[in-house]
Amino acid sequence: MMPVIPAMTAADQLAALPTPALLLDERRMLANISRLRERAASLSVRLRPHLKTAKSVDVARRLLTGATGPATVSTLREAEVFFQAGVRDTLYAVGIAPQKLPRVAALRAAGCDLTVILDTIEQADALVEGSRAAGAPFPALIEIDCDGYRGGLAPDDAALLRIGGRLQEGAELRGVMTHAGGSYGAVCDEARTAFAERERHAVVLAASRLREAGLPCPIVSVGSTPTAFAARNLDGVTELRAGVYVFFDLVMAGIGVCAVDDVALSVLTTVIGHQHAHGRILVDAGWMAMSRDRGTASQAVDQGYGLVRDADGRVIPDLLLASTNQEHGLITVRPGSGATLPDLPVGTRLRILPNHACATASQFAAYDVLPAAARAPLVRWSRFGGW
Amino acid sequence: MMPVIPAMTAADQLAALPTPALLLDERRMLANISRLRERAASLSVRLRPHLKTAKSVDVARRLLTGATGPATVSTLREAEVFFQAGVRDTLYAVGIAPQKLPRVAALRAAGCDLTVILDTIEQADALVEGSRAAGAPFPALIEIDCDGYRGGLAPDDAALLRIGGRLQEGAELRGVMTHAGGSYGAVCDEARTAFAERERHAVVLAASRLREAGLPCPIVSVGSTPTAFAARNLDGVTELRAGVYVFFDLVMAGIGVCAVDDVALSVLTTVIGHQHAHGRILVDAGWMAMSRDRGTASQAVDQGYGLVRDADGRVIPDLLLASTNQEHGLITVRPGSGATLPDLPVGTRLRILPNHACATASQFAAYDVLPAAARAPLVRWSRFGGW
Repeated sequence: MMPVIPAMTAADQLAALPTPALLLDERRMLANISRLRERAASLSVRLRPHLKTAKSVDVARRLLTGATGPATVSTLREAEVFFQAGVRDTLYAVGIAPQKLPRVAALRAAGCDLTVILDTIEQADALVEGSRAAGAPFPALIEIDCDGYRGGLAPDDAALLRIGGRLQEGAELRGVMTHAGGSYGAVCDEARTAFAERERHAVVLAASRLREAGLPCPIVSVGSTPTAFAARNLDGVTELRAGVYVFFDLVMAGIGVCAVDDVALSVLTTVIGHQHAHGRILVDAGWMAMSRDRGTASQAVDQGYGLVRDADGRVIPDLLLASTNQEHGLITVRPGSGATLPDLPVGTRLRILPNHACATASQFAAYDVLPAAARAPLVRWSRFGGW
Repeated sequence: MMPVIPAMTAADQLAALPTPALLLDERRMLANISRLRERAASLSVRLRPHLKTAKSVDVARRLLTGATGPATVSTLREAEVFFQAGVRDTLYAVGIAPQKLPRVAALRAAGCDLTVILDTIEQADALVEGSRAAGAPFPALIEIDCDGYRGGLAPDDAALLRIGGRLQEGAELRGVMTHAGGSYGAVCDEARTAFAERERHAVVLAASRLREAGLPCPIVSVGSTPTAFAARNLDGVTELRAGVYVFFDLVMAGIGVCAVDDVALSVLTTVIGHQHAHGRILVDAGWMAMSRDRGTASQAVDQGYGLVRDADGRVIPDLLLASTNQEHGLITVRPGSGATLPDLPVGTRLRILPNHACATASQFAAYDVLPAAARAPLVRWSRFGGW
């Protein structure tokens, strides 16, 4: 938490920031974190936040329920960086490639209790062989498919017991996990509740099959941000994973999981030109800053590359970042809104709310943080990428 | 040019690379570089390559026609990094924000002949005032709009002479520039040739108006990769800018500017699972590796998130990276092709050709380079991002 320009007020500092910059509203972020933490407590499950959205030790410290975890990651680099920061209970929630086992072994040997996931007998074979080579068992969850969205075994797949049994021949079966990726398209509470129940039902069924076969299944893990807020009960589930809720974004607002006002992340940009004849304002936030994510394009309200706010975060009605080039953004009024393009002189600062927080954040090396405490200076939290 | 794993062959090294990785085929890249260099020579214009695609000093050394430039950049960070590497003749080809002038002044004071662009009287005012403050004139090109695509003044806009005159009151008018961004949608040679002529006509007209008004206009600059290869003549133009041709990509192949076999960039990935029932193969290249760019979605042939090749770069017919999550890619056969999903065991290495080289490259911190020289080891060239 190094002050960026300590002698100035946060507003002055904001005005002096080079653009584009990634702004994080700490107050909104802390409210988002509390919201899911309370929900997990009310559902009586352990919360294992996904750190892939934030990729920042400073954010992780506020997001995790304990100094050592539990945490979920999407890359081994995340596991390594967060382990250096003290996180020791980590789930690597992307199917393990056999070639990656030496890095997993190194982390485990150093004291990180890293669990991997898999859904094929080949991966189980690799884990058993790797465990022998490492002289210590690799723990794993078996990935279950609850909605046909991505990877995993159907909960009634005969391979489940074969893989579980194979793991116990030298590796360590720790349980099952699933992710209802399809829930990102569920636009009403009832549909998200149904996805949450599909997640729960799939892993609880898989867990009971493993246990009936005499296999251990201590961990029963579900999660996605939409289902986390929609689940009515998580009976039989031991832990909940979610990530994007820490910042939220326009995609989540578009399906009703949060309000636009909950979005904690924005891109600070500067007006660099106008074309009155074309009804557009040019800014220095292009797709390199926003990412190419157009997640709201398939939603009821297409937000272009993002909603435009003024420098203080106040709404400017119906203003969109309609299109982007690498370092250029073109702002227009929302088509059909009848709104008038406001007069925003060259040099004006604006904030763009992103479609997809994970994608936009990944375009930057740091967060410029608007602190929750009144009169506190702007701070910079570094973030990282890579694999 | 640090060897990655010197004792192994390039093929062994490739097999040992952690995935996802950004592979650069140096032989193809050098052929692409030669192609546009010869073309610029035949059109009798100076070539000012755009370094925004590569963002790498090692690539720039091969791409630029001289050790000190000329070069085009899209961010001040590019200008700064390439200046440290010796590039001293640089065009910053995004409309200048007044807040950025102190960094421009610092680069110029250090010996970098950095030129900015603008298209408003407010920017010209800021340049004149900034030149006085810096005690040295800021040179600028006026941006001209040739196709209604992005920024710039119409060549017959009355503001052209006002801005040119204003610049001469303390800053330095160096000329005019344009970019036919619309040419990226031009799917036949004739259409691209028409865009090239629109670029030429627009800047030549603007230059003649400035000169008739007694204003200087030594530089008349055009450029985009599609028009660079389509221009019949560039009479009156002094320089040509282009960037993505260094690597090419599926978007450029999709409009016929290059062949798929010319694409020098790919993402190396590893198979991490299959779902035979769903007809898909899971790999560890998601959108974090490929970027969210779906530039071929609006073309005649939609390539999904990329075309799939085997580890040696050989064609596997009709295999696409059909969809992505953050760290997951789902490979399927091309819809309607009738092709059969090949048997690719867990651990198999594949290469994905990208839709958009600029966007995919920006997701990585380095290129793993397959050297042009036979039996040479794999090398790693670092790249950078940020602003």
